Amino acid sequence: MDAFFTPRAIAVLGASTSPEKLGYAVARNLIEGGFPGEVHLVNPRGGFLFGRPIFTRLSEIPGEIDLAVLIVPAAATPQALRECAAKSVRAAIIPSGGFRETDAAGAALEAECLQIARQNGLRLIGPNCIGVIDTHLPLDTTFLAPPPPEKGDLALLSHSGALAAAVIDWARGQGFGFSRIVSLGNQADVTETDLLPTCADDPHTRVICLYLESLGDGAKFIQTARAIAQRKPILALKTGRSQAGARAAASHTGALASSENAFQAAFSKAGVLRFDTLEEMFDSALALAAFPLPAGGRVTILTNAGGPGVLAADALEAHGLSLADLTPATLDTLRGLLPAAASAHNPVDMLAAASPALYADCLKTSLADPHSDAVIVILPPSPVYPTEQIAAALLPIITESQKPILPVVMGAGLVTATRAAFRAAGVPTFTFPERAVAALSSLRRRSQFLEEMEAESAPEAFPAAAALAARMGFSPAAAAHPLPEQIPAPSENLPAEAVFRLLEAIGIPVAAPRLAESPEQAASLAAELGFPLVMKIASPDILHKSDIGGVLLNLNSPEAVSSGYAQILAVARKNRPQARIVGVTLQRQAQAGQEVILGAVRDPQFDALMMFGSGGVEVEGLKDIAFGLAPLSRREALAMVEKTWAGRKLSGFRAIAPADKEAVIEALVRLSWLAYRLPPLSEIEINPLRVMEHGALALDARAIVLK
Amino acid sequence: MDAFFTPRAIAVLGASTSPEKLGYAVARNLIEGGFPGEVHLVNPRGGFLFGRPIFTRLSEIPGEIDLAVLIVPAAATPQALRECAAKSVRAAIIPSGGFRETDAAGAALEAECLQIARQNGLRLIGPNCIGVIDTHLPLDTTFLAPPPPEKGDLALLSHSGALAAAVIDWARGQGFGFSRIVSLGNQADVTETDLLPTCADDPHTRVICLYLESLGDGAKFIQTARAIAQRKPILALKTGRSQAGARAAASHTGALASSENAFQAAFSKAGVLRFDTLEEMFDSALALAAFPLPAGGRVTILTNAGGPGVLAADALEAHGLSLADLTPATLDTLRGLLPAAASAHNPVDMLAAASPALYADCLKTSLADPHSDAVIVILPPSPVYPTEQIAAALLPIITESQKPILPVVMGAGLVTATRAAFRAAGVPTFTFPERAVAALSSLRRRSQFLEEMEAESAPEAFPAAAALAARMGFSPAAAAHPLPEQIPAPSENLPAEAVFRLLEAIGIPVAAPRLAESPEQAASLAAELGFPLVMKIASPDILHKSDIGGVLLNLNSPEAVSSGYAQILAVARKNRPQARIVGVTLQRQAQAGQEVILGAVRDPQFDALMMFGSGGVEVEGLKDIAFGLAPLSRREALAMVEKTWAGRKLSGFRAIAPADKEAVIEALVRLSWLAYRLPPLSEIEINPLRVMEHGALALDARAIVLK
Repeated sequence: MDAFFTPRAIAVLGASTSPEKLGYAVARNLIEGGFPGEVHLVNPRGGFLFGRPIFTRLSEIPGEIDLAVLIVPAAATPQALRECAAKSVRAAIIPSGGFRETDAAGAALEAECLQIARQNGLRLIGPNCIGVIDTHLPLDTTFLAPPPPEKGDLALLSHSGALAAAVIDWARGQGFGFSRIVSLGNQADVTETDLLPTCADDPHTRVICLYLESLGDGAKFIQTARAIAQRKPILALKTGRSQAGARAAASHTGALASSENAFQAAFSKAGVLRFDTLEEMFDSALALAAFPLPAGGRVTILTNAGGPGVLAADALEAHGLSLADLTPATLDTLRGLLPAAASAHNPVDMLAAASPALYADCLKTSLADPHSDAVIVILPPSPVYPTEQIAAALLPIITESQKPILPVVMGAGLVTATRAAFRAAGVPTFTFPERAVAALSSLRRRSQFLEEMEAESAPEAFPAAAALAARMGFSPAAAAHPLPEQIPAPSENLPAEAVFRLLEAIGIPVAAPRLAESPEQAASLAAELGFPLVMKIASPDILHKSDIGGVLLNLNSPEAVSSGYAQILAVARKNRPQARIVGVTLQRQAQAGQEVILGAVRDPQFDALMMFGSGGVEVEGLKDIAFGLAPLSRREALAMVEKTWAGRKLSGFRAIAPADKEAVIEALVRLSWLAYRLPPLSEIEINPLRVMEHGALALDARAIVLK
Repeated sequence: MDAFFTPRAIAVLGASTSPEKLGYAVARNLIEGGFPGEVHLVNPRGGFLFGRPIFTRLSEIPGEIDLAVLIVPAAATPQALRECAAKSVRAAIIPSGGFRETDAAGAALEAECLQIARQNGLRLIGPNCIGVIDTHLPLDTTFLAPPPPEKGDLALLSHSGALAAAVIDWARGQGFGFSRIVSLGNQADVTETDLLPTCADDPHTRVICLYLESLGDGAKFIQTARAIAQRKPILALKTGRSQAGARAAASHTGALASSENAFQAAFSKAGVLRFDTLEEMFDSALALAAFPLPAGGRVTILTNAGGPGVLAADALEAHGLSLADLTPATLDTLRGLLPAAASAHNPVDMLAAASPALYADCLKTSLADPHSDAVIVILPPSPVYPTEQIAAALLPIITESQKPILPVVMGAGLVTATRAAFRAAGVPTFTFPERAVAALSSLRRRSQFLEEMEAESAPEAFPAAAALAARMGFSPAAAAHPLPEQIPAPSENLPAEAVFRLLEAIGIPVAAPRLAESPEQAASLAAELGFPLVMKIASPDILHKSDIGGVLLNLNSPEAVSSGYAQILAVARKNRPQARIVGVTLQRQAQAGQEVILGAVRDPQFDALMMFGSGGVEVEGLKDIAFGLAPLSRREALAMVEKTWAGRKLSGFRAIAPADKEAVIEALVRLSWLAYRLPPLSEIEINPLRVMEHGALALDARAIVLK
């Protein structure tokens, strides 16, 4: 990958002397852009460009070439790649269109290019892309009209070239720059996931921004992003929601689990901050690059006007933050600083005549408050002082603070100098209070992610799941072993008994009936199942068991089970002398409790997607559900549970008694490992899981296995 | 009110010759700003300013004065107002602070000013405000530094002066202007509601924008805004969510109904479009001022790059719009126009090389499609053509179209000329696809509101509610009449029987037991109650009625009730010869069905706030609820019902049979009239309302009445 970002020598194949051609623009951006290594131009016609000769063939270039930019028609690309391979070029960028995005012939051409690259250890970016920019080296392999983006500390990896180009122009207008920009195009070879580590290692990149339209290898993305996100923030705008089709499904979980839910769960697991709009993403990216992270979500708002202060306070709640409850000492200090008509209470309104010194003193006081994790300081155009004098008084405090201080500079023409002063000091500003609050909430989301990662326990791997997979013949390693008789063979719809068996195997208590053919067997089965138990006569000839006294409830010990066996058989023989009697069935007796749904579906990109929520028949209408990706840690399972009313209710609500939330989390974690370790399991769902004061029990369950 | 906006002569009290004083700035903005009427300056010191004499007293000015701007200290304001009154001034603007916003003394001063004004037919704007701007007259009574806002067609009424000032500066940077801007300050007299009609009648105002921190008279605001919104769009940013405290409540409805819910319901009823951020509000305001309204929500996206097209498509769904399903004829035409690799399917991707002519042809084709209600046309900086040439090709189509066409112009420096061309033609542009979609959704919300208003039936007034109010002594007119014995007197907690009586009186079927003392009375009561009925023996001495055969179910006719009466008395006398027997009770027998909650709470600003949703004990946790303001039309009641799962489920869901949704709507409308007509009714709630295949029945209900 280094060859893309720190090449010593670059060749431009298809360099052109016609200024309207892309082959001219690429040469120009590399040479006039100041790339510090060698740039060689190649075109069969030869000639001169920018004072240097154009080689007619790549092979004519003396010395090694690390990176080639191929400005050649799609049809000529395979041959050009072969020439690159012959020259031992390590990396190539293919801007041309006419490949997979066009038609089947283009797809075949793209496959051919990839094959040539793989055979020759050549990495490809593109085709159908804009290329690579590193503003710090500098390196610009694109054909975009100058000027290039300003230097900055954001990296942008984009699935859309046009979007990257528009963002570069827009960012210049907004006054911010980038460290690196890569347009990935069709991703025949190199993907965003491949480039994440190079951005993580780039000293000029402080924040990584992604524009994603899809993901090739979801599991690899999560693993890579999650590791990197612990060092550098990763932000993503993911489109394609509207294309997310419903999947064919047999379970509630399957019907409710969309590709969109899976992406949301994946970003959450990976610690990737997701946004709905480009502006929100870049507001947050700039804040993450510039400010320290807050230790909590309690925010002090400092303003010289009530309206913008209220706007900020309103936005806090919508973004999961709160107004800091300032200590009495802070309020006293503020009252000493402020005029009588001002408000020392948060939002702190210093009134319109607030001086630069008052701004600075109130900011220092707010920062010192232990209840205040962050400050938003609002500067509408001051009616009394030049607003830039206020900025000058605030800047040293902002740049030295260990807590984030986000300045809102409202207006345009009257605050041009103010914005410029902040920008020159590397401090981003926000046009409206709401946008500063949104950016601050991203800082908080990130500090929460880092806290969670620190507290995260290594997930238990539930070896039983792997063993079970092997025993069931799901695992390739077990293919040679015949299935034990009592383990169900894979089939489209697993019989209920088989699903219960699976759940039991992973350690989830179930209420499935089990057969015992003797008092001794009944007692030992009882010890295995746990108590209380229901015992029923097992006979193909007795349908209405309770009518003949063939059902015993509330069996609470092995002894009760033994004697119950004798009793129930005696009663049955007495009442139905003709009936064939096999023995008894035993099953866990479900006590009263709450009921929830637990499910998993196979996701094409992210292995198994887990669902938790309010069960019953209305689950699809009520949609009181949450999603997460398997395998779940206990923390992740708890977060899913707490997101739903069904989960919060487990702690009790008015007349509803508390239930065993721990047992639910345990079941959810175990089910996630089952789903994770058994790839042929397409859907599995417990509906309902009865949750009692102590323990939880799967009352009904279904599963689909794809052979 | 005219005196504020079309004064012939203005006096500036406290005009100053010191350029740093507000009294100088106001005189400057009026005189140099080009106000076409007379401007007179007043200051006890006299002198000259801007080449005209300063009068030492208001009374010295020859001729009439319509409007006075009082640049005097708070303490001097009452005296200044008296002088205005003596001069027969009709309106005054008081920018000064130091009134109600400061302390009790300031509040007293403000009350004094209001009293003087009321006594003398003088209207006040302020105190503690910035003043009034009309860019078209022009009139500028503010002290803001020039330049004034550009001319435009948006009016802004703001509760915050600082916010108005910042918005003026920001809007100039964004390239848009205003027709009128009023900063309202403390609203001692004139409120936003008072000014709405003047903006509605102003020919230069096409859209009215409000920045609200509170509302004084909620009911009047709704009435005024709803009437005006049918002519001109009203948009609002309402803050103060974070201050919305929980109200003390005895019912679920009371616990769930926040001031925030009430504002949301009020804006919905008034047809006021509400926004969360200033940028969103002004994006939508500009779109509403410039574009025709769409007849539906089906949108065609026209782009020269995939990424921005997908961004737009994604945003559609989030904003309640959809991708237009283009007709085969349109797709054929597009395929004829487009290169082979392009996508004719919506989003229509014309590829990067799209020419101005191709943009124009594809736009015309998309517009002609009957499935397409609106078009979003995306212009990233074109890599091939000057983007302004594309704009030039599109502009005539956009300005002549009967369907809205929203241009997205991405970037900054590369598209400056493009933006300017659109702006010069009065066509707003959007920096990102998401923002255009949000603005388009406002156009659609407005066209829906207008459609709804056209379809809205005059609400039935349920005269029974008013009569009932009178009979219960709730109405002042009925104070002289003693309460009939069987009607409950107002009390803190109404007894259940009284609540049932109230519901029955408004025509909501209830399952309350009613006493009959003879077969004839039972039959006539039965006809009144409806069927099926449950009959129970009425005796203070018989507690377990069913044990002695004292309960009859499924009575379906008056005859069955008559004969049942005889039967049940005979059985009771036989089994309990000693018991005192009063007669029988009859109550509606509730069939199986769905259950919902209906409630109303008295709102301090908006009369009665209605709630509908999933009932039971979990209503406060599940929060499957919707709010609306009483009195509800059938359309409004239906909209509330459809917003919840409980309501949608009434149409049936899988194994859940459909229930009588019409009966629910009927009950909700009737309950809203009861709550509307009975102001002492603080809370009333039916939980549950049993909804059967035919009809609905209140099974339990509670109410609180404040004396």
